[in-house]
Amino acid sequence: MTTLELSGGHVLRPDLTVERADVLVDQSAGEVLEVGALAGTGDEMLDCSGSLVMPGLVNAHGHGAMTLLRGYADDKPLEAWLEEDIWPAEAELEAGDVGAGTRLAAVEMLRSGTTAFVDMYFQVDEVVDAVTEAGLRARVGHGVVTVGKDDEAARADFEESLAVAERHDGAADGRVRTAVMPHAPHTVGTEFFEAFVPRVHEAGIPLHFHLNETPAYLDPIEAEYGERPTVYADDLGLLGEDSWVAHGVHVDDSEIELLAETGTSVVHCPASNMKLASGMAPVQELLDAGVMVGLGTDGAASNNDLDLFDEMRDAAMVGKLAAEDASAVAAPDVVRMATEGSAAAAGLPVGRVEAGGVADFAVVDFEQPHLTPTHDFVSHLVYAARGSDVRHTICDGAVLVRDGTVTTLDEDAVRESASEHATALVDRAN
Amino acid sequence: MTTLELSGGHVLRPDLTVERADVLVDQSAGEVLEVGALAGTGDEMLDCSGSLVMPGLVNAHGHGAMTLLRGYADDKPLEAWLEEDIWPAEAELEAGDVGAGTRLAAVEMLRSGTTAFVDMYFQVDEVVDAVTEAGLRARVGHGVVTVGKDDEAARADFEESLAVAERHDGAADGRVRTAVMPHAPHTVGTEFFEAFVPRVHEAGIPLHFHLNETPAYLDPIEAEYGERPTVYADDLGLLGEDSWVAHGVHVDDSEIELLAETGTSVVHCPASNMKLASGMAPVQELLDAGVMVGLGTDGAASNNDLDLFDEMRDAAMVGKLAAEDASAVAAPDVVRMATEGSAAAAGLPVGRVEAGGVADFAVVDFEQPHLTPTHDFVSHLVYAARGSDVRHTICDGAVLVRDGTVTTLDEDAVRESASEHATALVDRAN
Ligand SMILES: [Zn+2]
Ligand SMILES: [Zn+2]
Repeated sequence: MTTLELSGGHVLRPDLTVERADVLVDQSAGEVLEVGALAGTGDEMLDCSGSLVMPGLVNAHGHGAMTLLRGYADDKPLEAWLEEDIWPAEAELEAGDVGAGTRLAAVEMLRSGTTAFVDMYFQVDEVVDAVTEAGLRARVGHGVVTVGKDDEAARADFEESLAVAERHDGAADGRVRTAVMPHAPHTVGTEFFEAFVPRVHEAGIPLHFHLNETPAYLDPIEAEYGERPTVYADDLGLLGEDSWVAHGVHVDDSEIELLAETGTSVVHCPASNMKLASGMAPVQELLDAGVMVGLGTDGAASNNDLDLFDEMRDAAMVGKLAAEDASAVAAPDVVRMATEGSAAAAGLPVGRVEAGGVADFAVVDFEQPHLTPTHDFVSHLVYAARGSDVRHTICDGAVLVRDGTVTTLDEDAVRESASEHATALVDRAN
Repeated sequence: MTTLELSGGHVLRPDLTVERADVLVDQSAGEVLEVGALAGTGDEMLDCSGSLVMPGLVNAHGHGAMTLLRGYADDKPLEAWLEEDIWPAEAELEAGDVGAGTRLAAVEMLRSGTTAFVDMYFQVDEVVDAVTEAGLRARVGHGVVTVGKDDEAARADFEESLAVAERHDGAADGRVRTAVMPHAPHTVGTEFFEAFVPRVHEAGIPLHFHLNETPAYLDPIEAEYGERPTVYADDLGLLGEDSWVAHGVHVDDSEIELLAETGTSVVHCPASNMKLASGMAPVQELLDAGVMVGLGTDGAASNNDLDLFDEMRDAAMVGKLAAEDASAVAAPDVVRMATEGSAAAAGLPVGRVEAGGVADFAVVDFEQPHLTPTHDFVSHLVYAARGSDVRHTICDGAVLVRDGTVTTLDEDAVRESASEHATALVDRAN
């Protein structure tokens, strides 16, 4: 057993109190052995003085390789943006693009303290390779869309999602988990849900999809079935403790109750919802109803970064606007959303710094002008810190970022490769 | 004449196009001599390769020394937050506190590319000392509040604001300008406005105040005078080309028109407005009406940082929500707000990189994972960049931040001093 000691820092405990403590990790097991005053007992030492050791952040909804389209099209509403810019570009994706974009996403997430992420995209084999190399933890899946496809192609797409989920679950020493990921209730035909969802449940695979992101998600379901999409999704067996949905912007009270009753988690993506003018999710109401809420960046093309510190700040800010109450979506709730909430949503065993827990951490440097004075660590994490304050990132006991430098991937090479793939992709699309 | 060459970078031109160019500066005059291909003609060279040279950002509304109260009280609405937390703490301010807090604000702003700021606070002599030492540009003033004061104290407060404005205008080689700063229409009595505003105009001093930040700003004016506060302010001579107001959240169409007609600028403070749940300013409507709009952080206690990159992102994001239109408050408009807009609002001769212009710049490092690929520089400035991407900050021809390190103030000493003052201040208040 080789041990790593995170020494000299403060630690954010599961109850969100902060204390001076060291953290001892069993690196081979990726497990926390002890939190307390250790005074140099680790085989390897990691200096955390002036810093806060917190659980690694969990990005519970996104599309990693969309980093290639970061800043490609902005200031447009969701539907026009998808139809005019994003889908035509994505139609030109070639082998290697997804790997290059996901590596860029990995570097960006690692540098900003994210240790686990959920990825819904295509060419998932390339995603898994990137995650494995980066040393990250992930829940990955192939996104299913059947609208605009003939019956055979639609079935093949859903089959692919199942096959991908079965093929990769447990990869990278168990750091990679999988899910089946139908895009949304209105972009997958009822007959395909009816055919495949029972098979997904039989295989014990979780489900992840977009729910009620914009009014355009509601109208077709309400017109055809006379039901709110959440009710329709429940009828199809899409809700439950192994399901988590992205967005939930336009959910009414009965839908909130249904999400709570079924144990379905909601991943709030405030930046994407603001940038696409999709609306403000009723986050305080979801929390009050007992719904598990996590945080996600969504794809970099609608954000435009993958920094969960931005997402925490946005969640608190827009949560107050939505509730018209400055006490809504308070800082401690937001920190929970980005750690335990996201972890629970995505079914990952992370989100707490405690003995016996998984050794995934972000170490945040508090010796910064914008984090001075330190009246309140938790307030600073939400309202003042940014991804660039992350000094070290540790996942599964391995130091993936040390003093701001990624140890597993060559950042310059990843940026260069992503730029080349992005330029070629956009050239093909235009 | 000593010249400084910003070499090897890209330059953001006043029309917001970006080109490969060097910038030659006359350091003693603080003036740009040339923008183009210079190839090493400067006496001193500043490496800007991989970076974008843009106008220094201008923070057109704030209260610098409130950095001491950063994170002291959060998740509360404006009125309770002021009455229960902020005012009791501010009542305990002692000599040295404002200087310590303003130096911390200066370090934070410099590190994030802000070269000029507007400051409404108390103990302005200390503010001026801090600005002078830091090398920043500022428009400073003493905030006047007369509610809760007897006639003599109220008059003395307004006299102080005038005296401060006359005493300090032109300090620090002209980098310090001044204004008279009544807090808001409802916190200063009509009789005092009537007595002092004509004297302010005679002395040729600009006016800056808070306008319609929350509904609590409207109610007392509407109840007593039967007018919207903007109309009331106009009656008192408070509007005009030399006036700029902060917030303007709750302005109706006729008020927007009045602001446009009178040439009064509005400083949008989106983070503060979100955090205090004050509401969403109608920024796209203000722009459409031809009102000059700038950006401000407000005080660090309601933000909780002084990073104008956050403010740019917030302005674009919440502007879309407010307009329910993802094309509203587009990235180029936001970059203009943070540079030329704020500069025009505060009457400072900055905000453009061009020959003959003032030599105030932020140099942003684009060789970052979250700024890769670079389909669009302007999009990245608003949606993906953060203050920590600022590599160099130049004000009045002087390099105040070089490769991330402040050259004029000792950052560690400033942080330590501010922490000590903050701790003592909070101890006195509790
Ligand atoms: Zn999504
Ligand atoms: Zn203010």
